[in-house]
Amino acid sequence: MSHGSLPARVRIVEVGPRDGLQNQTTVLPTATKLAWIERLAGAGLREIEVTSFVRPDRIPPLADAAEVAAGLTPRDGVTWSALVPNARGLEGALAAGIRDISLFTAASETFCRKNINASIAESVERFRVLLEAAPRDAEGRRDLRVRAYLSTCFGCPYEGAIPAEAVVEVCRQLLALEIDELAISDTIGVATPADIHRVIDAVEALPGLDLGSQVALHLHDTRGTALANVCAGLERGISIFDAAAGGLGGCPYAPGASGNLATEDLVYLLDGLGVESGVDLESLIDAGLWFEQELGSRLPGRVIGAARAGR
Amino acid sequence: MSHGSLPARVRIVEVGPRDGLQNQTTVLPTATKLAWIERLAGAGLREIEVTSFVRPDRIPPLADAAEVAAGLTPRDGVTWSALVPNARGLEGALAAGIRDISLFTAASETFCRKNINASIAESVERFRVLLEAAPRDAEGRRDLRVRAYLSTCFGCPYEGAIPAEAVVEVCRQLLALEIDELAISDTIGVATPADIHRVIDAVEALPGLDLGSQVALHLHDTRGTALANVCAGLERGISIFDAAAGGLGGCPYAPGASGNLATEDLVYLLDGLGVESGVDLESLIDAGLWFEQELGSRLPGRVIGAARAGR
Repeated sequence: MSHGSLPARVRIVEVGPRDGLQNQTTVLPTATKLAWIERLAGAGLREIEVTSFVRPDRIPPLADAAEVAAGLTPRDGVTWSALVPNARGLEGALAAGIRDISLFTAASETFCRKNINASIAESVERFRVLLEAAPRDAEGRRDLRVRAYLSTCFGCPYEGAIPAEAVVEVCRQLLALEIDELAISDTIGVATPADIHRVIDAVEALPGLDLGSQVALHLHDTRGTALANVCAGLERGISIFDAAAGGLGGCPYAPGASGNLATEDLVYLLDGLGVESGVDLESLIDAGLWFEQELGSRLPGRVIGAARAGR
Repeated sequence: MSHGSLPARVRIVEVGPRDGLQNQTTVLPTATKLAWIERLAGAGLREIEVTSFVRPDRIPPLADAAEVAAGLTPRDGVTWSALVPNARGLEGALAAGIRDISLFTAASETFCRKNINASIAESVERFRVLLEAAPRDAEGRRDLRVRAYLSTCFGCPYEGAIPAEAVVEVCRQLLALEIDELAISDTIGVATPADIHRVIDAVEALPGLDLGSQVALHLHDTRGTALANVCAGLERGISIFDAAAGGLGGCPYAPGASGNLATEDLVYLLDGLGVESGVDLESLIDAGLWFEQELGSRLPGRVIGAARAGR
């Protein structure tokens, strides 16, 4: 924007292959996922969360986590990460050569319990135990990059509005564990820019936190506010944004309801604002249109919809 | 937003019954349109563009303009407006009791020619002639409120990017005709907040223009940027925003492509920002879900999609 200074460049964390696919009813062949991930990396995405090392019966669309990880072609400058729900998951990820993991907790107690059957405090304690098993380098430093998702930071389907203090408290506990990156998540897509400012106001003062390099915004476009929220984040110096190719991640039982912010929409905005992301929009759109064919259904992202319609 | 001051309240101009319906293949019964308009007004929308007085064979979904206008129930504080393409259209609107009209031109020469078979200069000259036939009050003042749409102010399907100077030039000519309101339109939904700032930078210095009371933003959500653009407009003091209930207005031949900014999405954002619009979101959503049934197809708006999905 011409008014106010924005970061010159941002990092995009592509979560489609994990957060997008986990909510699909369709179970894609491993080869298709790998071909998709290749295309996303080919479009310039540098950080891709490729899967989740969950119990295969829990999330059938991601049951092939080890095969996906094993099938990835190393690329200079590209990081593959994976969600890890527990010690067994970490074992699987490490065995597959993954050195960037994500953990999952929430700012809402009820959402945390319903999703991972633990209180927030218990989830953080689990992280502590789990991270003791992390590999170490010669100097004893953890040889594992760790991001944590803080879901429902703005609203919870069970509790409604979530106070910023709850977000701050979880952030504080995660920082004590030396978590590298905090993904502040609008899981149900209720935030407006006022909420983004409110939560950043509360979080930015945390000792030991570098807002510009440690905080990601993980936004959903359920109510159309995602890009407005990205702008608010940019204005505050946030430089890491999650997105899912095509906006994949809408609930499969809720046609027309949008899920994750679509990576194409994010890149379109960033290009317009002159904020560098390293992603080539045309290649990304090509990947999305190709993936729609493979998936056999339309992706909810706006830019993909416009491209499909020849606009 | 907590940072920067926004207008305390805004006016929403509901364009669904005109701009939304004109692109539909479905021709709705007049009674259905009237029932929809009633619901929209009941939700608190105070300015509704109800139809277009075009030649009936040109836009079949709006062929019943006179019947729609005749069927409206007067409501305190509610204004019904209509698009008027020419002198005969003005005659029809006036005969139907309409005292708020809209005219249509463009910032792109090619788009103007393709749409109304006139150059921009010719279109402005037509307005001048047309407005000579406007009713006058006892003091000889025009007894007709006139808004002009400036389409393709940010990008044109034929010419690509449109320079801000082209927008300024059309605005200048329209102000000379004492047009009351200029609807600066992102007809194909290509703008990002940087473009909004760029065009407002160019327009705001125009002599005789009051940005806060005379300029509306007419945004399309084709690429997901509409609400981010609304925020940019609010930051600059714009206080009139067009929207179409349910986001109606996507091209019927392009499923999945979004058209007008959805009124529900706009109201959701404004509510979140604490900007008053006078519209009750729940009533508006009810109207949208009812209208989807009548229309027999899903509306593309995000909030409507979330409501349909029970989110």
